[in-house]
Amino acid sequence: MHLSDATWTDVRDADADLALLPVGSTEQHGPHAPLGTDAYHAETVAEAGADRHDETVALAPTIPVGVAEEHRRFDGTLWVSPDTFRSYVRDVVGSLAHHGMDRVIVVNGHGGNVPALGEVTATISRHDDAYAVPFTWFEAVGDRSSEMGHGGPLETALLRATHPELVREDRIDEARAGASDGWGDWVSSTNLAHDSAEFTENGVVGDPGTGDAELGDELLDRAAEALDRLLTAVADRDVSG
Amino acid sequence: MHLSDATWTDVRDADADLALLPVGSTEQHGPHAPLGTDAYHAETVAEAGADRHDETVALAPTIPVGVAEEHRRFDGTLWVSPDTFRSYVRDVVGSLAHHGMDRVIVVNGHGGNVPALGEVTATISRHDDAYAVPFTWFEAVGDRSSEMGHGGPLETALLRATHPELVREDRIDEARAGASDGWGDWVSSTNLAHDSAEFTENGVVGDPGTGDAELGDELLDRAAEALDRLLTAVADRDVSG
Amino acid sequence: MHLSDATWTDVRDADADLALLPVGSTEQHGPHAPLGTDAYHAETVAEAGADRHDETVALAPTIPVGVAEEHRRFDGTLWVSPDTFRSYVRDVVGSLAHHGMDRVIVVNGHGGNVPALGEVTATISRHDDAYAVPFTWFEAVGDRSSEMGHGGPLETALLRATHPELVREDRIDEARAGASDGWGDWVSSTNLAHDSAEFTENGVVGDPGTGDAELGDELLDRAAEALDRLLTAVADRDVSG
Amino acid sequence: MHLSDATWTDVRDADADLALLPVGSTEQHGPHAPLGTDAYHAETVAEAGADRHDETVALAPTIPVGVAEEHRRFDGTLWVSPDTFRSYVRDVVGSLAHHGMDRVIVVNGHGGNVPALGEVTATISRHDDAYAVPFTWFEAVGDRSSEMGHGGPLETALLRATHPELVREDRIDEARAGASDGWGDWVSSTNLAHDSAEFTENGVVGDPGTGDAELGDELLDRAAEALDRLLTAVADRDVSG
Amino acid sequence: MHLSDATWTDVRDADADLALLPVGSTEQHGPHAPLGTDAYHAETVAEAGADRHDETVALAPTIPVGVAEEHRRFDGTLWVSPDTFRSYVRDVVGSLAHHGMDRVIVVNGHGGNVPALGEVTATISRHDDAYAVPFTWFEAVGDRSSEMGHGGPLETALLRATHPELVREDRIDEARAGASDGWGDWVSSTNLAHDSAEFTENGVVGDPGTGDAELGDELLDRAAEALDRLLTAVADRDVSG
Amino acid sequence: MHLSDATWTDVRDADADLALLPVGSTEQHGPHAPLGTDAYHAETVAEAGADRHDETVALAPTIPVGVAEEHRRFDGTLWVSPDTFRSYVRDVVGSLAHHGMDRVIVVNGHGGNVPALGEVTATISRHDDAYAVPFTWFEAVGDRSSEMGHGGPLETALLRATHPELVREDRIDEARAGASDGWGDWVSSTNLAHDSAEFTENGVVGDPGTGDAELGDELLDRAAEALDRLLTAVADRDVSG
Repeated sequence: MHLSDATWTDVRDADADLALLPVGSTEQHGPHAPLGTDAYHAETVAEAGADRHDETVALAPTIPVGVAEEHRRFDGTLWVSPDTFRSYVRDVVGSLAHHGMDRVIVVNGHGGNVPALGEVTATISRHDDAYAVPFTWFEAVGDRSSEMGHGGPLETALLRATHPELVREDRIDEARAGASDGWGDWVSSTNLAHDSAEFTENGVVGDPGTGDAELGDELLDRAAEALDRLLTAVADRDVSG
Repeated sequence: MHLSDATWTDVRDADADLALLPVGSTEQHGPHAPLGTDAYHAETVAEAGADRHDETVALAPTIPVGVAEEHRRFDGTLWVSPDTFRSYVRDVVGSLAHHGMDRVIVVNGHGGNVPALGEVTATISRHDDAYAVPFTWFEAVGDRSSEMGHGGPLETALLRATHPELVREDRIDEARAGASDGWGDWVSSTNLAHDSAEFTENGVVGDPGTGDAELGDELLDRAAEALDRLLTAVADRDVSG
Repeated sequence: MHLSDATWTDVRDADADLALLPVGSTEQHGPHAPLGTDAYHAETVAEAGADRHDETVALAPTIPVGVAEEHRRFDGTLWVSPDTFRSYVRDVVGSLAHHGMDRVIVVNGHGGNVPALGEVTATISRHDDAYAVPFTWFEAVGDRSSEMGHGGPLETALLRATHPELVREDRIDEARAGASDGWGDWVSSTNLAHDSAEFTENGVVGDPGTGDAELGDELLDRAAEALDRLLTAVADRDVSG
Repeated sequence: MHLSDATWTDVRDADADLALLPVGSTEQHGPHAPLGTDAYHAETVAEAGADRHDETVALAPTIPVGVAEEHRRFDGTLWVSPDTFRSYVRDVVGSLAHHGMDRVIVVNGHGGNVPALGEVTATISRHDDAYAVPFTWFEAVGDRSSEMGHGGPLETALLRATHPELVREDRIDEARAGASDGWGDWVSSTNLAHDSAEFTENGVVGDPGTGDAELGDELLDRAAEALDRLLTAVADRDVSG
Repeated sequence: MHLSDATWTDVRDADADLALLPVGSTEQHGPHAPLGTDAYHAETVAEAGADRHDETVALAPTIPVGVAEEHRRFDGTLWVSPDTFRSYVRDVVGSLAHHGMDRVIVVNGHGGNVPALGEVTATISRHDDAYAVPFTWFEAVGDRSSEMGHGGPLETALLRATHPELVREDRIDEARAGASDGWGDWVSSTNLAHDSAEFTENGVVGDPGTGDAELGDELLDRAAEALDRLLTAVADRDVSG
Repeated sequence: MHLSDATWTDVRDADADLALLPVGSTEQHGPHAPLGTDAYHAETVAEAGADRHDETVALAPTIPVGVAEEHRRFDGTLWVSPDTFRSYVRDVVGSLAHHGMDRVIVVNGHGGNVPALGEVTATISRHDDAYAVPFTWFEAVGDRSSEMGHGGPLETALLRATHPELVREDRIDEARAGASDGWGDWVSSTNLAHDSAEFTENGVVGDPGTGDAELGDELLDRAAEALDRLLTAVADRDVSG
């Protein structure tokens, strides 16, 4: 049930207690992939997970801008402060819970949101009348997770499977040429770089040429399956404590 | 230029200084219209205004949840606090301005957002490195503005023109039956009701049966034309003061 | 019962549950009217309304500085941020309610306070142990409301009736000469001006020469009568929801 | 120059850089003295100090509600949180400084405001474009300061001199009977009481019968003289550091 | 019971409801005394008071940085804002109370912390599930309190008794030479100086040569005895109100 | 240079621009290890790193309480909110930078602090006049990092090497018996547990019996060496961007 398309009477009649809240980011993904990549992916995975699940799941609208100031040196990157982001997520979850949808999985498409989501879902679960956990799709694709870069093989593959028209295939060589191999500039397990522009020339990490649409389909399948399992676990969990 | 679909290099090359930021709400619109009505309308009008305008305009992703606690008694209504909403809008506008898109029109689809948008655009324009103004589409459709209700003739007409599949035509009679004639419960020019459920039985204000798709097309045309004019005025304004 | 002049034992013995909280502004009102105009008017109207009402009404001291940054380019204009203003009003209402005066009308003399008062009275009524609504005197004088400017006919008339010594009659011609006809600089129903100095040369909107003391008396009578009716409605309202 | 009664053109022409901001409290002062005692006294002293001073001094309107939750168990006591109070004072001083009145003495009538005023004037002076210091009248009356109670000899005397109609002389015996000798409930230099009701039966500390109007005149004279000296010192101080 | 050295099972078994929370400052104390003087003293006094008390007292770890911006012109002085300091103390006390240690004395070694501690302990006691009061050691040493300066006789004496290796005896003459006689720059009972560097050349107030280790022992004894008495009073107090 | 033991003149003369700020936690570490484990370890590692480094490094006092609400069900665990923790760290770093020590490594002993430190060091580096990075000692001990639990082999080993008297060796069997094998309760790469008590009976994760003092010495050596390298990298980094 997409909340945006349902009426309030539909929501009343569905009487769901499970909800998914997709959160993305609008930020650089190299010269070949759109700024909205993370928001598209969060929404795609959330839809697929809800579809696969047996019980009714409310699907909230996607929060499009997240914690992404690290990409500020690349044009078009949008961000809100971590405080603002946490408040926005907390308030939305609070209004879902107000209507009884008080078990909420925040389906996330952006690595930079992870710490803030860990914090805010803990705060909600401890102090508000709701239980919330985060789910970051690319952490839940099994052994594929290790290939995650930024605008790299996994994200580009999933775009090729779901939004092929948004991948600039004619810029893949350029994207590869300016990419870095890994995220960050590390000394003694500390990342010295607070901006991605300190370690990647064009914003890309990893090789965007290596992930085809078939891989994208596989990733979506893995992520949806993982989300389905998580929905079951969240539905069944004793959160009375 | 939809920022979500553009790459950062596209944004860099476009070199726009005008941006539109659509803001909606996810809230009850009666038994016949979807919760996402205001977000859909904000996005539709913003797109139409950008299309009509001669110069390149950056179109930011739509902020889907706004100031709507007044509808909390109707299921599925989502809201954030006015503080959170202002922070979210201010931060997003700040990141647009960081890239030079520092003349921003917040295209609004929800009456409940109006006071918060007036405040935050003033704050931004006075204290940040950007100039921002709000534009609420149904205030800019000329003499039609007076017919605005809630889930009433104007909003339903625009849905019929742009998202007809989302209007439950078979519930229009029901919607009309539970509607109130006007917004609020007034004594001495003061609205005594802080919740919409205090004056409308099913959330509707006005008659949703009276606005057809043709009216919707007319409204969109009027709003787009008004927005185009506003874009020109914003582009030309001396904001150095 | 003026709280400032009552003792705590008087308040205890009066056992009122209705209170009026006047809020003004200290801001430019042209070359002919004092900075304190809005605070004087809020207090005057509140007193008159309380006098007319049958039941005991507690009259809190007037909050003298409000949301008025828009007049910052005119000397002597004082303001607090909207956040600070809302906090101040909310805390004062909270302390009134602590003593059982938990139905509060915020009697307002300044247009710039209106959005913040709408927000904070809703927040109080939904989340605190009190019910509050705003009452802006010049919105409650019937067909006269449409003549409201800034330092214009209505405000000057009320001053002439209540504080004639504060009107500089010898500067009325000057005031008229530098006044604008209307508030703001509008395109497509959007006000492009965030500062009043962008559209009025000397801060005045409307003709201050046209409102005499007789009109002032009439305005006060209308406002007091409207406030009396509102007090009755607030006293009778079911706010248990 | 009372800002409330001046026009913006008067303020412009006066070109003052010194301002006084009176801050009071609306709180219990026993069965014999009004809730507004501290606000009246702050305003009275500020006026007297400004009158005595040679140069033009802007006199801002009095902030009527301060930090007074400690008196919450006595009816009619109003308060704002210390955070709200600091914000209100800081914002008002900021707007005074915006117009060049950037040397501000906060003239205080309430002991409970002292810590918050010390903090906020330091914050303003270190971080904003203004210099501010607090002045608490009853700390500046020489050897008389030691007689200060609450609703006791000093405050009642000053009322008798300036607002005799507000002193309930027929309740002085009652006031004396329920008074405590000193403020607080002390062990090892720590006050164990967070509420005044823990140590005074009717809110009074000290004997309100002992201060006559003559003493009140003397106190006002001493305070005004001290404030005049402080104005000179503030005007002359090098605050460039 | 030092919480830092106890295990959680020790705390569980001790079942204390009294706790001491030492708070210091890391700030200049002249050329002869260490920056950590106030933190050392708070901890020393807290330990001595807990040792002397009959019942089990939980001793929390010392908060090392407080409200000390006034010393910012002297190198190495650390500070947090008063807001941050209050939040830190409030949160720590809240977690103590969560485990039943809900009667907390904040043992303070720094004059600059006093107003913030008065405020936050009142807030905690009125609004949280705990009772808290501050105890500032040098206010509780009887007639010796009047000799308190800054890096002066009392503080240096206590260092000589407890941390003699941290006193640079060879710089005492220098310390004395650059010291001021008193704290602040006073006119009309108002301190015009917001920074200590405005009235003391090297940060010292008072003569650090006059307090020997014997005096230090006496001070510690007095403070510990006072704290022991306060612990008893806090344990016995009815805080149900 | 320990700031707590240095005088302000020492700091002035040392003229360092590098500083270490140790941050710990006071939280359960099983029945065998003290609540202060993380604070002790942060301080120990910071001292060892500073000792090993060639240039002068300022060592700030240890912040003893961090982000640890997840352990709230175990007695004696203290915590502050993530917001409070970030503010405290940011303010302290700001005061270090005020004196020229504007390259700061936050030396961390607690996993729960990691997300908040990542956020606040980025905020500082992007928006304040300082450069800061976090260093979490157990992430910087090479292949040993994978053995990290909670009160497990690594932390207990380091205690045995540095504070053997604080390890309750007679409770090691009990500690092992109630320990869990891993941190959290995972489904689909999401940890469903917001409290450690949901997955460990006595708070321990890992076997505290397997790490001896020799391992502790090795860990300290590795961590100190890593920190020394990081100090060099931070000193040399171009942070002008």
